Amino acid sequence: MLECITISNLAPMKFSSRILAEAVDTFSRLPGIGKKTALRTILHLAQNDTDLTGDIITSLQSLVDNLKICSRCHNISDAELCDICSDGSRSMSVLCVVSSVRDVMAIEETNHYRGLYHVLGGVISPIDGIGPDQLNIESLIERIQNGEAKEVIMAINPTIEGETTIYYLSKKLQSTGVVVTTLARGISFGGELEYADELTLGRSILTRTPYQLSTD
Amino acid sequence: MLECITISNLAPMKFSSRILAEAVDTFSRLPGIGKKTALRTILHLAQNDTDLTGDIITSLQSLVDNLKICSRCHNISDAELCDICSDGSRSMSVLCVVSSVRDVMAIEETNHYRGLYHVLGGVISPIDGIGPDQLNIESLIERIQNGEAKEVIMAINPTIEGETTIYYLSKKLQSTGVVVTTLARGISFGGELEYADELTLGRSILTRTPYQLSTD
Repeated sequence: MLECITISNLAPMKFSSRILAEAVDTFSRLPGIGKKTALRTILHLAQNDTDLTGDIITSLQSLVDNLKICSRCHNISDAELCDICSDGSRSMSVLCVVSSVRDVMAIEETNHYRGLYHVLGGVISPIDGIGPDQLNIESLIERIQNGEAKEVIMAINPTIEGETTIYYLSKKLQSTGVVVTTLARGISFGGELEYADELTLGRSILTRTPYQLSTD
Repeated sequence: MLECITISNLAPMKFSSRILAEAVDTFSRLPGIGKKTALRTILHLAQNDTDLTGDIITSLQSLVDNLKICSRCHNISDAELCDICSDGSRSMSVLCVVSSVRDVMAIEETNHYRGLYHVLGGVISPIDGIGPDQLNIESLIERIQNGEAKEVIMAINPTIEGETTIYYLSKKLQSTGVVVTTLARGISFGGELEYADELTLGRSILTRTPYQLSTD
């Protein structure tokens, strides 16, 4: 009986349909989607929801055909210039450098930033074979040299690779005279000191800020 | 500052591209896929993997165009009859009644069954508005009346709805003289008695089986 459990755990899924098997196989190539999730999704599409299947086909085709990369900031865009770059009401003097499009969205969601962006498309990571040449760094230098901003905010993940990238960019930008800043480091709102890492907690003591009594 | 946290938690995602927003929206209509997973998936497709995007479009289109339902057992199939129904080497005397295509796959993976199937397409569940008429029950009765099997195995989830369905089907099949069996109930292999529910554990004592010394 133990033998049969082993067989069932190791055996590949048995499909009664080649079309179904191929669809599940293709879907499970997506990041974070395993065979079981792919199967559930495809069966849902096949059995209940032909409208949704059509809509997904249409929107993926539209991604392939119409999606552009903003020629100025490298954000994902519907046009030559993205909505943020072509928004005249935003501050032209601050440039926020991020590694990915998701970071642009995260910062936009805070409603605390009204400047422009520059998407690097990753961070310098020799171990993954990503050097400065693979990133949108040259176009960033050009933008600063053209006087497109007075301040560059390095909004890059505080990992080893991120810090390396910030260091590299600061060096490159040194001669332009632009002000380079980074996001404030410290304890998260709602975080618990007990679970904060030593480095963050230690630095947040060293860089403590004066307490301001609320005036409400 | 607390206010800003609230805003960022409640605000909808800010997309710089309508095409991207629509694709994320469509994808998040899939069961078990939220906005964040949809965004990660769509950005992956948009930025890194245009081959995969094309493959997904092709396989979904193939689902829409080519996938069929087996006219005999209602399993998902590439042809009029599914691979299982058209496999001459399988036993024609046993019919395994399951609620969904996934259950067919689960049973096939055990390698312990060589008969045919009948997929009901759900279980009787008045609370969800699913009565006998919404399920493939009439075609099951017909198959049994045509003498397609001597035994019907009710391989249906042992839930209240499942038990109701088994009861309903047994009643319907009573006059045909077919033998109706259900899957054995008891403690799972590898399960722990401590965590088994009382009903399963209690019944497994009442329906205990003689221990057979292994002959290896």
